[in-house]
Amino acid sequence: MNTLTVELGERSYPIFIGQGLLDKPELLTQHVQGRQVMVVSNDTIAPLYLDRVREIFSDFELATVILPDGEQYKNLDTLNLIFTALLENKFNRGCTLVALGGGVVGDITGFAAASYQRGVAFLQIPTTLLAQVDSSVGGKTGVNHPQGKNMIGAFHQPACVLIDTDTLDTLDDRQLAAGLAEVIKYGLIRDAAFFDWLEQNIELLKARDKQALAYAIERSCALKAEIVAADERESGQRALLNLGHTFGHAIETGTGYGNWLHGEAVATGMLMAADLSARHGWLSPDAVRRTEKLLQQSNLPTNAPDEMDTARFLELMAVDKKVVDGGLRLVLLKAIGDAVLTSDFDAGKLRETLAAG
Amino acid sequence: MNTLTVELGERSYPIFIGQGLLDKPELLTQHVQGRQVMVVSNDTIAPLYLDRVREIFSDFELATVILPDGEQYKNLDTLNLIFTALLENKFNRGCTLVALGGGVVGDITGFAAASYQRGVAFLQIPTTLLAQVDSSVGGKTGVNHPQGKNMIGAFHQPACVLIDTDTLDTLDDRQLAAGLAEVIKYGLIRDAAFFDWLEQNIELLKARDKQALAYAIERSCALKAEIVAADERESGQRALLNLGHTFGHAIETGTGYGNWLHGEAVATGMLMAADLSARHGWLSPDAVRRTEKLLQQSNLPTNAPDEMDTARFLELMAVDKKVVDGGLRLVLLKAIGDAVLTSDFDAGKLRETLAAG
Repeated sequence: MNTLTVELGERSYPIFIGQGLLDKPELLTQHVQGRQVMVVSNDTIAPLYLDRVREIFSDFELATVILPDGEQYKNLDTLNLIFTALLENKFNRGCTLVALGGGVVGDITGFAAASYQRGVAFLQIPTTLLAQVDSSVGGKTGVNHPQGKNMIGAFHQPACVLIDTDTLDTLDDRQLAAGLAEVIKYGLIRDAAFFDWLEQNIELLKARDKQALAYAIERSCALKAEIVAADERESGQRALLNLGHTFGHAIETGTGYGNWLHGEAVATGMLMAADLSARHGWLSPDAVRRTEKLLQQSNLPTNAPDEMDTARFLELMAVDKKVVDGGLRLVLLKAIGDAVLTSDFDAGKLRETLAAG
Repeated sequence: MNTLTVELGERSYPIFIGQGLLDKPELLTQHVQGRQVMVVSNDTIAPLYLDRVREIFSDFELATVILPDGEQYKNLDTLNLIFTALLENKFNRGCTLVALGGGVVGDITGFAAASYQRGVAFLQIPTTLLAQVDSSVGGKTGVNHPQGKNMIGAFHQPACVLIDTDTLDTLDDRQLAAGLAEVIKYGLIRDAAFFDWLEQNIELLKARDKQALAYAIERSCALKAEIVAADERESGQRALLNLGHTFGHAIETGTGYGNWLHGEAVATGMLMAADLSARHGWLSPDAVRRTEKLLQQSNLPTNAPDEMDTARFLELMAVDKKVVDGGLRLVLLKAIGDAVLTSDFDAGKLRETLAAG
């Protein structure tokens, strides 16, 4: 087992990474606050792991709520299912929520924890690669609005993150690929050597080689933990983690939540960011080709859907959280491993990228 | 004009109190973040003050959303009206919300500000006595769930609070009385001399004497600011501000939101707390009589509705935010001006109070 720490003063917390960690109940139980535990999962994950997780918390006053699976359910109505379950079970402000599932379950459970009685504790047990390498770490929680991804939420850090890499055995190939998109992102924004390693090991990762996956998860979590520790509330460098996300969120919202997986939309968005960077001469054509190739080898889409024309992209991007005082800011690339957040790009070139994307 | 400060380090903010303050736009505009301002009000207050407030922010990119008036609309659906308005107007994370109205508008707008894009700025312009002396100060925001008052929310401090005492001219008598309940609360929990002053000046307050009202508001805000500065997130003494609220929230939830005003329910709840305190010999019968008399002189109810039997009270109180690990804690009185938060009360005596209440 490898343990990383997200250093946030009194809100610091560990990330446990390894095989078979669901067999070590004390990793989780030591972080429970109070005597009441509510496990939140979805109807895909619950049949696979809920019994084992309930066993871990069997000494507590335990309740469960099962949400429908899918990005299209990441909304205020589904959030309210959690509040109703908490109130029906008479859970008080000393309770702990446990998120068992992928990014949607983690984000919505975290926001429920941030908001229930103005804030209770929560633990993350991410079961998808995407949630393990990205969304379970760092305290961004929230739900979607029909007009914008993740527009409603809170910063609320978990008390711990437990990543049992065995849970990837039950992940389908499409979800695995979506997770790889966020792994590749870390290489692109901050770690050229890791990008090289990914190019060399992509076939092992696709074949679910345990050692390769464990390394990719650890390296991703370590990079994320560093960035979050330096900039918890995204006033600076944390925004670099949104490489591809402004384009990607527009695709997710524009095509209807749940049709494109988040990682798929981010993959296409990252290539669009690379393309726009190259149009400014900031990124070499070779780096763009390498990015496209690695994404394609990962079985990820690299072209926006036909329904997303330039006008629709621009409309949806106008409310992105990177917009400040009317100026759209984008994460762009100066090189593989070197990202910048900038509003200093050419609007005409952006239109070219959107038209070509 | 009197200016108080809520001392919270970098989140400190001023409370401006006086007549005609809506004619001093710079008090508000200096606290706006960004260029986008969304004024949130309700259909009772908007016809009275919205035009003047829009004028204050006429140099900004300005939008408005009008909510239905009443506690029964303080819920996630109404909250979502604000998010939709923000997104339709393409408001970004650098925007500012302005709450113009009573406690419901302030609480819901504050929670919208806490949650929109994970947190934007907001200003409070409270127009009811209750909001001026209590809910607009201190950063408690949120909405109700059908099964519990204020069960969903966040701590999120405003950038300033502007109290124009002229707005009380348009307040109806029932709302004025509801505000007096929270004023009386400060005397009961912390300031016996203020309680004495209220006994001596209750007729002036009911007659809306400007000087008396201004003193009552200033004293209430000063007491609240002190308490919030010492305990922002209610880990200790801030809980004393909930005198009467555990009983009162049960009445509000049990009778259906909007039938009892919050201040009316708190008035009855405070007398129940006084009664329970007296049954333990902590509070003198004379102090209970004085409390009852002052509440009645203020035209406030002091008896729970018939539909609230003991079983219903206990059921609704079991999810109150003062419950920790199964033990109900109540704010009780040792004397007028001296409150304690305690779970060390007799369950049989609580039943007696609930049956008598």
